[in-house]
Amino acid sequence: MKKLMNKAQDFARETIEGIILAHPESLKMVNDNFRCIVRADERKANKVAIATGGGSGHLPTFLGYVGYGLADGVTVGNVFASPSAECMYEVDKAINNGAGVLHLYGRYGGDIMNFGMAEEFASLDGIEVEEVLVTDDVASAPKGEEDKRRGVAGLFYAYKIAGAAAEKMYSLKEVKEVAQKAVNNTRTMGVALSSCTVPEAGKPTFTIDDDEMEIGMGIHGEPGIERTKLKTSDEVVEQMLNRIIEDLPYESGDEVSILVNGLGATPLEELYIAYRKASKILEEKNIKIYRNYIGEFATSMEMAGLSITLLKLDSELKELLDFEAYSPFFQQNRK
Amino acid sequence: MKKLMNKAQDFARETIEGIILAHPESLKMVNDNFRCIVRADERKANKVAIATGGGSGHLPTFLGYVGYGLADGVTVGNVFASPSAECMYEVDKAINNGAGVLHLYGRYGGDIMNFGMAEEFASLDGIEVEEVLVTDDVASAPKGEEDKRRGVAGLFYAYKIAGAAAEKMYSLKEVKEVAQKAVNNTRTMGVALSSCTVPEAGKPTFTIDDDEMEIGMGIHGEPGIERTKLKTSDEVVEQMLNRIIEDLPYESGDEVSILVNGLGATPLEELYIAYRKASKILEEKNIKIYRNYIGEFATSMEMAGLSITLLKLDSELKELLDFEAYSPFFQQNRK
Repeated sequence: MKKLMNKAQDFARETIEGIILAHPESLKMVNDNFRCIVRADERKANKVAIATGGGSGHLPTFLGYVGYGLADGVTVGNVFASPSAECMYEVDKAINNGAGVLHLYGRYGGDIMNFGMAEEFASLDGIEVEEVLVTDDVASAPKGEEDKRRGVAGLFYAYKIAGAAAEKMYSLKEVKEVAQKAVNNTRTMGVALSSCTVPEAGKPTFTIDDDEMEIGMGIHGEPGIERTKLKTSDEVVEQMLNRIIEDLPYESGDEVSILVNGLGATPLEELYIAYRKASKILEEKNIKIYRNYIGEFATSMEMAGLSITLLKLDSELKELLDFEAYSPFFQQNRK
Repeated sequence: MKKLMNKAQDFARETIEGIILAHPESLKMVNDNFRCIVRADERKANKVAIATGGGSGHLPTFLGYVGYGLADGVTVGNVFASPSAECMYEVDKAINNGAGVLHLYGRYGGDIMNFGMAEEFASLDGIEVEEVLVTDDVASAPKGEEDKRRGVAGLFYAYKIAGAAAEKMYSLKEVKEVAQKAVNNTRTMGVALSSCTVPEAGKPTFTIDDDEMEIGMGIHGEPGIERTKLKTSDEVVEQMLNRIIEDLPYESGDEVSILVNGLGATPLEELYIAYRKASKILEEKNIKIYRNYIGEFATSMEMAGLSITLLKLDSELKELLDFEAYSPFFQQNRK
């Protein structure tokens, strides 16, 4: 394991301490607990609050999307491990502006259980809580079982859309509905070229030969749909994008946003080579790219590989996607 | 070699094509040549133009810093290879607003020779050209020979300062002077944990054992000052930062900007763990962090490791550092 770290058990805490030291104007801890992070800027009365959370190791997911026009608070677990329900509850209490809280997170067993318990705790305090699970990973369950899929880079779109809706003072029911619409319109496929190493495990999560890749692998190394010899970028992008397009399906005349996301070790150059092919395929199919995002949005530590995400847009989603948003890790249209 | 690419010889071209497809409102080619990229937004008459350039494989350096409040044009070489003088000359002609051009780039042999030839070509056309070489890499030559050092992540500060000065309508002489002041006040040290692979070479640039690291390694794999067993992050940061601080030296009472830069494969989490220690060391030494930057600013493809850069500030440099700047790869204070 080659990491620039101190003790493995301190990895998540020291990461968060560094983030808070770097960005005190934007982020702060609740009760001095590094697992409970909320926005430090001014709060808006009666704005719906958005809570997220999950394991560490995916920056800028999840904590990086706590900011204006995004989420209001996050609960931070150890690397690839769900945080506790108690911390989620503390975040809910800290961010509630009187209009309720939306739990918005990726569909993973531990997180579902813990956010469910946190919802019960919060309800006892009279805080209204709704939840939307992000389920964009096409490879994780077959068509027809979309609600059994995992959440991956499509989380970004869910934060962006729901966060904008909340800033525009949508009600909790309305924020939930538009977040669910965004999830319903989002599909992602990933490809991994190398493993990552969880600090406390100390060895790679999986092994993969020097000439192999795995299409559809999850962001914690969950098995994909095909392990194959390394193909060209164009071939990989075509295979992934076609699978995405067929799944929703995205159709001629549709407008989409595309996210080409690096999993950690993949150079930005390779993401743009992938974008080049993806944009050509979409043009051929008469699917119009309304807005693109290219970079690292949801990572798996030092895993090499990338994912492609499409979000099908309508006029409401376009307006929310275009809305101002900023955090220490993401900026768009900041005024 | 595990890369998501097509033919190795197409790597740089396909990268740039992807970038231009993704960001046509910001960047465009000169004469349909992917090696000559300039700003696509509105030009300001009599604004000093800033040209940079160098090999591919370092994104967001160099091309990522072509934008408002940054550089105006870039010449793009193959991976880790200098672009040609002819292309540099084409960029100079394309970006000159009548107030002359500053060649601002890292001190590497091929680039020095080619920018020198381009300067001669441009001068024959009556374009006034000045140059500033970025020489921030402390490990690349001893103290007393600062002008023999290589340019690494400190390039970012040179673009940020010179670009702001140009937007504020400083003269060519003034832009050159303040860019040189920024370079004189900037020091960087890096550490590498793994090699990168140049696509056309097809094998790692250097070998390093699984339990080793190399302090002071350059961004093309140039030898560093110490190869050692892997140390803790805190130890590495302390060693690098002390070397930087002693070199200028940075002193009690100074105000600085700090840049913690990932070399490619290093997770953002590890950059923040490094920032945590760096900020504590600076606080102990009564050196105040005025503004921090943490992320990937100058990479070496998929190399694992990071660098730390300090820029000593005065009131002029603070004003220029705070100035609005944006490109598809960097945004600060965008209005």
